[in-house]
Amino acid sequence: MPTPKTQKRDKHYGKWFRNILINAEILDYRYPIKGCGVWLPYGYKIRKHVTSLLRKLHDATGHDEVRFPTIVTETNLRKEATHIKDFENEVFWITHGGLKPLEVKYALRPTSETAIYPMLQIWIRSHADLPKKLYQIGSVFRYETKTTRPIIRVREVTTFKEAHTSHATLKDAEAQIRDATKIYKDFFDTCGVPYVISRRPDWDKFPGALYSLSFDAIMPDGRTLQSGTVHNLGQNFSKAFNIKYETLEGTHEYIWQTCYGISERGIGALLSVHGDDNGIVLMPLLAPIQVIVIPIPHKASRQLITETCKQVAKRLSLNFRVEVDWREEITPGAKFFYWELRGVPIRIEIGPKDVQKKQVILVRRDTFEKEACKISDLSSRLPLLINEMSMELREKAWKQMKKRIYRVADLEKANQLLKKRAGIVELLWCGDGKCGHELEEQVNATLLGTPVDVKKKIEGKCIVCGRKASGLVRLAIAY
Amino acid sequence: MPTPKTQKRDKHYGKWFRNILINAEILDYRYPIKGCGVWLPYGYKIRKHVTSLLRKLHDATGHDEVRFPTIVTETNLRKEATHIKDFENEVFWITHGGLKPLEVKYALRPTSETAIYPMLQIWIRSHADLPKKLYQIGSVFRYETKTTRPIIRVREVTTFKEAHTSHATLKDAEAQIRDATKIYKDFFDTCGVPYVISRRPDWDKFPGALYSLSFDAIMPDGRTLQSGTVHNLGQNFSKAFNIKYETLEGTHEYIWQTCYGISERGIGALLSVHGDDNGIVLMPLLAPIQVIVIPIPHKASRQLITETCKQVAKRLSLNFRVEVDWREEITPGAKFFYWELRGVPIRIEIGPKDVQKKQVILVRRDTFEKEACKISDLSSRLPLLINEMSMELREKAWKQMKKRIYRVADLEKANQLLKKRAGIVELLWCGDGKCGHELEEQVNATLLGTPVDVKKKIEGKCIVCGRKASGLVRLAIAY
Repeated sequence: MPTPKTQKRDKHYGKWFRNILINAEILDYRYPIKGCGVWLPYGYKIRKHVTSLLRKLHDATGHDEVRFPTIVTETNLRKEATHIKDFENEVFWITHGGLKPLEVKYALRPTSETAIYPMLQIWIRSHADLPKKLYQIGSVFRYETKTTRPIIRVREVTTFKEAHTSHATLKDAEAQIRDATKIYKDFFDTCGVPYVISRRPDWDKFPGALYSLSFDAIMPDGRTLQSGTVHNLGQNFSKAFNIKYETLEGTHEYIWQTCYGISERGIGALLSVHGDDNGIVLMPLLAPIQVIVIPIPHKASRQLITETCKQVAKRLSLNFRVEVDWREEITPGAKFFYWELRGVPIRIEIGPKDVQKKQVILVRRDTFEKEACKISDLSSRLPLLINEMSMELREKAWKQMKKRIYRVADLEKANQLLKKRAGIVELLWCGDGKCGHELEEQVNATLLGTPVDVKKKIEGKCIVCGRKASGLVRLAIAY
Repeated sequence: MPTPKTQKRDKHYGKWFRNILINAEILDYRYPIKGCGVWLPYGYKIRKHVTSLLRKLHDATGHDEVRFPTIVTETNLRKEATHIKDFENEVFWITHGGLKPLEVKYALRPTSETAIYPMLQIWIRSHADLPKKLYQIGSVFRYETKTTRPIIRVREVTTFKEAHTSHATLKDAEAQIRDATKIYKDFFDTCGVPYVISRRPDWDKFPGALYSLSFDAIMPDGRTLQSGTVHNLGQNFSKAFNIKYETLEGTHEYIWQTCYGISERGIGALLSVHGDDNGIVLMPLLAPIQVIVIPIPHKASRQLITETCKQVAKRLSLNFRVEVDWREEITPGAKFFYWELRGVPIRIEIGPKDVQKKQVILVRRDTFEKEACKISDLSSRLPLLINEMSMELREKAWKQMKKRIYRVADLEKANQLLKKRAGIVELLWCGDGKCGHELEEQVNATLLGTPVDVKKKIEGKCIVCGRKASGLVRLAIAY
């Protein structure tokens, strides 16, 4: 087994990420079509734990899982005018069935509003049908013309969790936006991925939405990754798709809608935020293997070591996902390296001295801290250790992110910080689109939006025009 | 709530099936694109239990789950000559990305050989990489020109489990065919869906295969449904995709491959085989709700009944998927009807007399048999009852199927039976393609193939040419 090349995560993040995906057997990006990758067995298992978490969070909050077709008709895709305008340039078009041209073109769904809403029009009749909260996890497709990057910017997004909700009133839709934000916080908190939440500027909201909120994480190279979005669609789509309900009073009103999505970028953030130069570091809850047991070979104690490994693995497997690495053709050192690369949270080493002392050595993947633990104490110690590790991973990530958010008062400073990809800069802004665009141009960065997670109102003047500021605005070099 | 129209299953099977899908909230087929349906929340849950079973069976036998892209290049689709020849007429072609024509056309995968095998060419280097057993569950697409039918014949097959295995020798591939057959038997046996296994005639094997085995079930209308297929691909694809491995001796050989698939037709068979005029009947293991508790309202005992329902549901939920139907706006009778339609295996009724006697009434969905059961005995009785029901469902289905297989000695009899859709006829055949085609024409039916599940060798003469028969052959009106 040749030793895979690793990279310094912070110095060469792009390369690090690409190498990690192949070397840790997560995703193979050498598929013959640009922007399409293959989830490998180990990566697929990580994906499964992440999607299970998403399912759990949505099921627990009254969402029903469904599965809509992958293709939509051109007619439906065109119904909401701003929606098609934004997606027109990045839709894959199906024009032929077999050898014959189709009468109406089909598109691979770029997102599923136009697949789902024609059915809502059939299903929703009265106020009793509301609220309706649906979600699905599947593929969406974008013909990306920008540089594609595995997981981060792809042509087939294989893991798009999208929820679509229908409500009787704007107030209900607003409440759902808060619920959705809470669900997404829970999701990223469980992943230990820190985020800022911003209200996207009007010119960059989801096509067809009243407004959009975005969860942005900061990647190791200082660029931000939009990892989740929450949209209030108002009645834009319900009017386009003619989705009405009968009120208690017998009148007919258009429904109010929201939608919110998290893609495999969530997995990308998870891998990037906790990883280090040795590989990925998985949050224990989401790790396919939580504990890897490695026997340290020793001729005289061979049988005893084998027995102890088996016994320890068996006992722990009641509560954890445990495996023993029995391979004989490679050294313990090579095994350490192998499982570190793959981010297994806890390593257990069992050697000749350990079996004598009836103990094992526990090693944390994130800190490499070692501790001896009596076998009789293992069942009580391991859950604590895993809990400590999860908490510390999360805290460390939040601390790192917070250090990369800069509140600045002048454009030159902003420019400097963004040029060296320091992270996110927060500036005062009047809220005017013209100033926003000028800001983006002057610092050559993306306006993420205005903070919705900063409670305190900041007073001052717009950094561009000098008028009274309406509040902070965030800018960053975004993926 | 209007009462949904039911149909006699055996008299109007097609209508019955369509109605059941909508009324039991399994699948909505009113999507604007022909041959595409929407899995509804309840149907999605059934699908989830079925796919979990498939995952369990494949994971337990050394298969790794992966996820390949949905689109393939025209170049790769064309590599295996017979493969493209068969699929050419039923592939959806993507010709445009955004507003621009693509340089190379893409196809929506009709099955995933041509997506997976270019990657095997990268991954497989030496004998140490073999065997390699991969599977995935996802969508495949066929531009069906025949009449589409929900679940049975669709343009987007949303639930295609396909496994692809690579081996060093033909012998290993043959052993894998036996393993795959065993997995599929386990799958259908757990679903209680009876089947015959036949070796498909050469002119109807999977395009690119050496030979194909097929699992066929008999639907209530006497037509057969091909519900699972197992293919030995030999070296046809490995030669087309140049997939070689280095042997122990240092030579380079093409790998031997197999593939096998089960689609949502498996779910269609499950629903059809056990269903009756009142709706579907779910195998308990695969039921989203295994036990539905229905309080029988009674003014004086109201509180006691409510408490008992809660207590019973809570206790049973440790081992079963249980719900209580608390709705007050509909009668118990309407609830019985509602859950019968949805196939919930066991109903528990709790009324005033029952709470007095500290008992509940258990009702089996399949037989409608009622029995009183002391609450204190429930935890021991319910598992037995569910087990009895599962076994009897399976046995009954097998008995019914066996009655519909006819071994006949003359063509006229075969013709009669097939004309009235009696089921499968078995005839003696010389094995010659010419006779096979003539047979198909004369009885206007599909030749399913030669039995691989009938051990005993049957002697006699070919029904067409009178030469010595090589054995039995099966014919049926197939979906």
